[in-house]
Amino acid sequence: MKVGNKHYRSIWLASDGRTVQIIDQTRMPHEFKIVDLTNLQDAAIAIKDMLVRGAPLIGATAAYGVALHMMADTSDAALAKAYEVLIATRPTAVNLRWALDDLRQLLSPLVPAERLAAAYRRAAEIAEEDVETNRRIGANGLAIIEQIAANKKPGERVNILTHCNAGWLACVDWGTATSPIYQAFAKGLPLHVWVDETRPRNQGAHLTAWEMAQGGIPHTLIVDNAGGHLMQHGLVDMCIVGTDRVTAQGDVCNKIGTYLKALAAFDNQVPFYVALPSPTIDWTVNDGVTEIPIEERGGEEVGEVWGRTATGELTKVRISPAETRHGNPAFDVTPARLVTGLITERGVCAASRDGLTGLFPDHAAR
Amino acid sequence: MKVGNKHYRSIWLASDGRTVQIIDQTRMPHEFKIVDLTNLQDAAIAIKDMLVRGAPLIGATAAYGVALHMMADTSDAALAKAYEVLIATRPTAVNLRWALDDLRQLLSPLVPAERLAAAYRRAAEIAEEDVETNRRIGANGLAIIEQIAANKKPGERVNILTHCNAGWLACVDWGTATSPIYQAFAKGLPLHVWVDETRPRNQGAHLTAWEMAQGGIPHTLIVDNAGGHLMQHGLVDMCIVGTDRVTAQGDVCNKIGTYLKALAAFDNQVPFYVALPSPTIDWTVNDGVTEIPIEERGGEEVGEVWGRTATGELTKVRISPAETRHGNPAFDVTPARLVTGLITERGVCAASRDGLTGLFPDHAAR
Repeated sequence: MKVGNKHYRSIWLASDGRTVQIIDQTRMPHEFKIVDLTNLQDAAIAIKDMLVRGAPLIGATAAYGVALHMMADTSDAALAKAYEVLIATRPTAVNLRWALDDLRQLLSPLVPAERLAAAYRRAAEIAEEDVETNRRIGANGLAIIEQIAANKKPGERVNILTHCNAGWLACVDWGTATSPIYQAFAKGLPLHVWVDETRPRNQGAHLTAWEMAQGGIPHTLIVDNAGGHLMQHGLVDMCIVGTDRVTAQGDVCNKIGTYLKALAAFDNQVPFYVALPSPTIDWTVNDGVTEIPIEERGGEEVGEVWGRTATGELTKVRISPAETRHGNPAFDVTPARLVTGLITERGVCAASRDGLTGLFPDHAAR
Repeated sequence: MKVGNKHYRSIWLASDGRTVQIIDQTRMPHEFKIVDLTNLQDAAIAIKDMLVRGAPLIGATAAYGVALHMMADTSDAALAKAYEVLIATRPTAVNLRWALDDLRQLLSPLVPAERLAAAYRRAAEIAEEDVETNRRIGANGLAIIEQIAANKKPGERVNILTHCNAGWLACVDWGTATSPIYQAFAKGLPLHVWVDETRPRNQGAHLTAWEMAQGGIPHTLIVDNAGGHLMQHGLVDMCIVGTDRVTAQGDVCNKIGTYLKALAAFDNQVPFYVALPSPTIDWTVNDGVTEIPIEERGGEEVGEVWGRTATGELTKVRISPAETRHGNPAFDVTPARLVTGLITERGVCAASRDGLTGLFPDHAAR
């Protein structure tokens, strides 16, 4: 999507056709810094130190990481090493494992001389597939926004609330939750986005607000506490969020605080949509609240806030007393009953077993 | 309440019987600094610059501000000036006006020679009345905590979630929402408090966590997003919050984000209580959502976070892109249907017209 007037993806090849380039997301929104990845270690560090984040982008970066290593060495041992180094960067990331398994399966049977070209080709395909999936999610979500816009007075804007960053920075392009927004905006629909700051890591303030600003989309950053009040007063027409995992019955695991927004949306009859690529559906899990273990992250994320001082220094400040303990559950589960619909690359369905199996009869049957 | 092993109030007289002492709350939790107020200007600055905050404490500080000015001059003109200077510090604070009206009414008919002593006497009474009111709120709330504790296994702790700071720092002593907690803890009940950080101004992280730490009460600071998840998993036994205004039908106006916690409590059958001194009831308002105008505060509170750097400097950091606009509604309204009960100095009642008029037949009849 746009950064100023130029189109960017979150990962791309430099003009040499070999160097991989990414945006260092740890410095955003204060610095826009492009980083060259020229070897396996560069790719591993980019994932481990979260220069790249978001499931699809991690997958694409891992795939390119394998390709980069094939430049140095296309032996079986090198392939094994690339897998080993990259899988260790963020061991719980499902897309990371998926991409690495995919590349290993593709490259292993090939003679070494064919591996370099094949790895770059497949990494590019993985990136393109993500772009296409998210473009379709956007097209399907666009129809919902158009319907809401049709019920407004001419020129009246559609107010959309989103939580965390399910934007193009987390994917390769478009984003998931943001894809309908970008497509509606491109079509000229009058839009305004409420961006939740999304404590503790502030991905809304750092990334989603930046995406909206770069795309020229009218938006307002709010604290996570504010959304309920806005919905009570008719200032939100719909919510769209992303998700890390959707269960077979339609429960939605997403960034901590999503559940609170879904409750407020339900209480005020505001439609609450979740945008996702279908691999996010975990057909092995039903009840998200009882079955999904929630990661407890470090307390320093709660006790410290990162930003830029008046003198331009990027630093963390401590907000809590030294004696205080911090709790930091990273995700929560929104029960399906609070979700208006799931926006996927195949279409929009109800957040229910029937809804999901209707759209994905092939997966459900497995 | 306790600061370390010493008992403090939020406002008191120094040993000379004239100098007023307060805690500079703008530096907390990083610095505990006691400030002397020796004249009218000192008191006005303390209120205006929010060294003191919280309705009851503002009222007490204003009363002492009048007393301080009587040391310099007890004339009618001086009395008028004290009123004028202090009322301008925070024009929308109801308790400020109330305390100033009270002192003016008391002092005006007196001969100037009697005004100094009378002002100090009345300021002390206002402070004592607040302490006694909050002690009673605590006793009434304690009964609820004891009941919850009785249904737990022996030694199992009662988990209480609170939002913002309705603690002793906002009052003269005890606090409102915290008073039942302090009394239950003093009685030896096993307790643990979930403290919402309460963005944007972080009063939970800065003040409530500090109060709990100083009082030795087990507590955990969480982001505002986390409470719903905790309630889903049975980790919260009750919520207690304070309030800025309760309507005649029991709607509760309080710090932004209170409504979201009340929704989560309701969805998970967690009791949600609101602690308040009865002057907080606004008998002229019924529907809080439609009738109470919500203050929109400056966007810099959203875009910047204050804290201490690793090198000990107290500073603000910017978290959002320069191009981004911020929305900052300061309060929200929790409909009475989500409130389990109102804890007042007269007892606990339902959040309804019947509940309120039952406890306060005198006020309701006016």
